[in-house]
Amino acid sequence: MPAKLLAMKKPADTSLPILPVIRERWSPRAFSDRPVEAQTLKVLLEAARWAPSSFNEQPWSYIVAMKHQPEEFQRLLGCLVPGNQVWARNAPVLMLSVASLKFQRHSKPNRHGIHDVGLASENLELQAQSMGVMVHQMAGFDVEAATQVYGIPEGFVPVAAIALGYPGDPKLLPEDLRERELAPRERKPLSAFVFSGEWANPAPFLGED
Amino acid sequence: MPAKLLAMKKPADTSLPILPVIRERWSPRAFSDRPVEAQTLKVLLEAARWAPSSFNEQPWSYIVAMKHQPEEFQRLLGCLVPGNQVWARNAPVLMLSVASLKFQRHSKPNRHGIHDVGLASENLELQAQSMGVMVHQMAGFDVEAATQVYGIPEGFVPVAAIALGYPGDPKLLPEDLRERELAPRERKPLSAFVFSGEWANPAPFLGED
Repeated sequence: MPAKLLAMKKPADTSLPILPVIRERWSPRAFSDRPVEAQTLKVLLEAARWAPSSFNEQPWSYIVAMKHQPEEFQRLLGCLVPGNQVWARNAPVLMLSVASLKFQRHSKPNRHGIHDVGLASENLELQAQSMGVMVHQMAGFDVEAATQVYGIPEGFVPVAAIALGYPGDPKLLPEDLRERELAPRERKPLSAFVFSGEWANPAPFLGED
Repeated sequence: MPAKLLAMKKPADTSLPILPVIRERWSPRAFSDRPVEAQTLKVLLEAARWAPSSFNEQPWSYIVAMKHQPEEFQRLLGCLVPGNQVWARNAPVLMLSVASLKFQRHSKPNRHGIHDVGLASENLELQAQSMGVMVHQMAGFDVEAATQVYGIPEGFVPVAAIALGYPGDPKLLPEDLRERELAPRERKPLSAFVFSGEWANPAPFLGED
């Protein structure tokens, strides 16, 4: 078992008292080779399980591959774009989130299927953060390949690839990724996305104490 | 100012040690008429702000209407389906989440826009839960009407209507809604959505301790 690294801290630059798990969560590329215990993975997925969803449809699924099963791990890793394989190969766990695009009860389109996967995956992210496990979701994977590889049926769509594990040493990353790993987190101001009355009109309460 | 009600508890039926804010969050229909302070609203939206997103695009916006501005409130309330107006009219704050469907930098489609709104909105939900504010997201609203009413431009789409506020008295709900308010929360088992190797194959680690 390698020495445990403390997670690099990149807390959100905020003066507002948000939850520590939300403030401290970020998406690293450096992972330790320490395995993630089955019990821990179950807790992360249990957190996802209790997310809200449109008509309680629970349109999320997760395909999970662990490094100690090399064939399974390679199968999921192989769906990622090369730029993500470079670092994600060092994560002990990879996942693929999948959305149902139809209501199971009557097969009509569920316009919130992909959105509700986001609700569940953020529960997973924050539960992980609270347990010292770090999560990095990726858009960069081959949707067609993943659909083929796992036999994902019509009416379902792979949404995001997910790498997770305990924090690793940023020094072991290639230089370009190391720089991104150390860069501060940035976000648009509230006034750029909180509106009132009409589109793009910053909500007046943002200026109140 | 009316007497404060304690929130009705409907904790998730789970033996796994998930975060209390995730275990205790649920979506009520009974809201107190106690206003939500501007500062509290800012904290909720700040939590949303720090969600992860594909290429850090932050494709979420929120349109906010508060009850003490009756015209604004009616405008958003009027976009909801009648079945939601019945109870949502008693919430002190209504919102509409909106997704960008294109990357702002090059206008190419962002297939994660709606998903990433889900990540941000779950941050908002959990931040609210931690502050005693309850959130109920709704699929039931008129997407076209909301787009017109707020002048939401092409390339953006309203995703969910959101009611939020402090907990109210379920006894004041119509009888059918009161029954739903008191019903236990239910979810599919992990084995129904956590797979390994191929679609619909429950992950073996679910059976491990």
